[in-house]
Amino acid sequence: MDKGQEAIELHRKNQGKLETVSKIKIKTKEDLALVYTPYVASVSKAIEQNKKLANELTLKGRTIAVVSDGSAVLGLRNIGPEAAMPVMEGKAILFKQFGGLDAFPICIGTQNNDEIIAFVKNLAPTFAGINLEDIEAPRCFDIENALQDIGIPVMHDDQHGTAVVVLAGLINAAKVVGKDFKELKIVISGAGAAGIAIANMLLCRSFEEGICEAVGNLLLVDSKGIVNKRRTDLNPYKADIAKHSNPDNQSGDLHDALKGADVFIGVSRGNLVTAEDIKQMNSGAIVMAIANPTPEIMPDEAKRGGAAVVASGRSDFPNQINNCLVFPGIFKGALAANAKRITNEMKHAAAVALAGVVKNPTADCIIPSVFEPGLADIVANAVAKAA
Amino acid sequence: MDKGQEAIELHRKNQGKLETVSKIKIKTKEDLALVYTPYVASVSKAIEQNKKLANELTLKGRTIAVVSDGSAVLGLRNIGPEAAMPVMEGKAILFKQFGGLDAFPICIGTQNNDEIIAFVKNLAPTFAGINLEDIEAPRCFDIENALQDIGIPVMHDDQHGTAVVVLAGLINAAKVVGKDFKELKIVISGAGAAGIAIANMLLCRSFEEGICEAVGNLLLVDSKGIVNKRRTDLNPYKADIAKHSNPDNQSGDLHDALKGADVFIGVSRGNLVTAEDIKQMNSGAIVMAIANPTPEIMPDEAKRGGAAVVASGRSDFPNQINNCLVFPGIFKGALAANAKRITNEMKHAAAVALAGVVKNPTADCIIPSVFEPGLADIVANAVAKAA
Repeated sequence: MDKGQEAIELHRKNQGKLETVSKIKIKTKEDLALVYTPYVASVSKAIEQNKKLANELTLKGRTIAVVSDGSAVLGLRNIGPEAAMPVMEGKAILFKQFGGLDAFPICIGTQNNDEIIAFVKNLAPTFAGINLEDIEAPRCFDIENALQDIGIPVMHDDQHGTAVVVLAGLINAAKVVGKDFKELKIVISGAGAAGIAIANMLLCRSFEEGICEAVGNLLLVDSKGIVNKRRTDLNPYKADIAKHSNPDNQSGDLHDALKGADVFIGVSRGNLVTAEDIKQMNSGAIVMAIANPTPEIMPDEAKRGGAAVVASGRSDFPNQINNCLVFPGIFKGALAANAKRITNEMKHAAAVALAGVVKNPTADCIIPSVFEPGLADIVANAVAKAA
Repeated sequence: MDKGQEAIELHRKNQGKLETVSKIKIKTKEDLALVYTPYVASVSKAIEQNKKLANELTLKGRTIAVVSDGSAVLGLRNIGPEAAMPVMEGKAILFKQFGGLDAFPICIGTQNNDEIIAFVKNLAPTFAGINLEDIEAPRCFDIENALQDIGIPVMHDDQHGTAVVVLAGLINAAKVVGKDFKELKIVISGAGAAGIAIANMLLCRSFEEGICEAVGNLLLVDSKGIVNKRRTDLNPYKADIAKHSNPDNQSGDLHDALKGADVFIGVSRGNLVTAEDIKQMNSGAIVMAIANPTPEIMPDEAKRGGAAVVASGRSDFPNQINNCLVFPGIFKGALAANAKRITNEMKHAAAVALAGVVKNPTADCIIPSVFEPGLADIVANAVAKAA
């Protein structure tokens, strides 16, 4: 049986992955009277008088909604909300496993931005935070932006989870190759959710002064080529990156972009890059080919092209760039600090903390394993401190 | 410590009552690859090709949303969504305890009908059914009606759960007092969610021909008095009842209504009725005083007035009318039958099945205990058969 079929059978056997379980045993009328009518009324009255008590007396204080419209699921694109359920249910159990937070998947029956925004706002009384997931770009940017003032943290993980792990990996990879982080010439392939967020993070856009050092030379490449100030086909998010990157206003395709680059970050699609392209990069090249399941270039091929450090999204090669490394800790830290939103400073702190877990980075270890004990707490503590 | 304070402490200790738990242990990279990327993609692809597989491969097939806007919570009225959370969380754990169904509470940040309707529609891809709860009348009727075609069962439990248990109790109470069910003269106090639903159920409104026998003489009484065809202050739901009840077009208050009645059903508020009122009823009077926590008349007082059978919403007296008796079984049956909605016939079947659990009804036992083993399955089987 192949692994895909094995996954299907595992899901069938369990009818999914997540269950809801009572924390309190109900054996008698008296138990029932305490958890439900009549005495639950006292709990409700207490919260009516002080809404914040909902965090202490209900699951609201510890539960994250994993919300998707199914428009950009993994590499499968727009497969709709029902088909997105296995991914969101998976994400929900990872919140519990790695962060100790409860979580529930909600795949919604609309792909209209205004309806999604209204929907998520109306979830706010129930949840401690909202993890947006697998919503296509550029709609994901508008949706996330519109939800920053609903009183609980809202984060689109495809953007920021990925950006945080990439930054962490890059901090350590720069040490491995002995290059100064802010001098790195970086090429990002893919201007979707992850690409835009990584670019903004590396450029330190919207960060408080002094919180981080921006890279000086970054090229963002979409399916039409290098993003630059002359292009008229850019959405507002790409146009914004064009203003703040590509200082020489370079044009061309991905292959042109890679010539003389120090870092390749792929968040686009499989098999875009060859060993020949990697040979055109500077010596000590860092390759993060994260497209899933097929990377922009297979790790072995990147090594053959001379890459000094190679990371991918795959679990069967070293240096797996995996959002699981950070989203549990980011939300855990935000909740611990009672933060109303997840700021750029909190994300940056998460990346620095994650990088710091690897005491002696090597070419095959720029990022810890998701099973590293205490990882979420390390990230959470840094995030809470930055909040 | 009083019971209310005990309930608050119990909720604080557990930070609510419901947790989300993984059904699958994740200990290795290989486990992770099966429940999340990359192999979860196979599960998603299978569902993309056949949406119905979501019921088999995700929690969608077994999970109910308990949705409230917090506008009519218990006897506490409009306390808002956060304060409603303990009640909905309680309901969710009762779904699991009594029906073996998973459930999740969602208290929403709007009390606008159109927004609630849009919200619940967008939940449909995630859940097997929607239990609407504690939404005020008459808004609850419009909302429930608008949601009957979303492809999964939607039921407002305050209406139909209560109506089903009342009907079941009344079937047995009529046997106890030796009266013919359809000849009963019935007075309902309260024309909110429960009162309207009970009236429609007893009048067999919207039922298929022959599925049940309607009572011939029913008076619905609201805070202004007996509902009749001359009144111009009735909302459409009350006006509809006026057309089909009260054959003599009687007017007056609750006390007038009770003269010569066989049955009093109270779903209004505490202390509206006295022993003197009960004395004005026919001999063999049946009193179901369900207002919570203070009934329309205390059971002892009703007995003093000569009532032959007395039921209430309280767990500290015999014959507790409790929705927990039916909502788990109704949804379980609807899911087993793959029903797209919960019809009147299914509700009627639930009532008859519930009544049938009590083999030899007596004045102190017209209704089983919620802890009766196998109760939800008995109800579920009847509901599935009627679906």
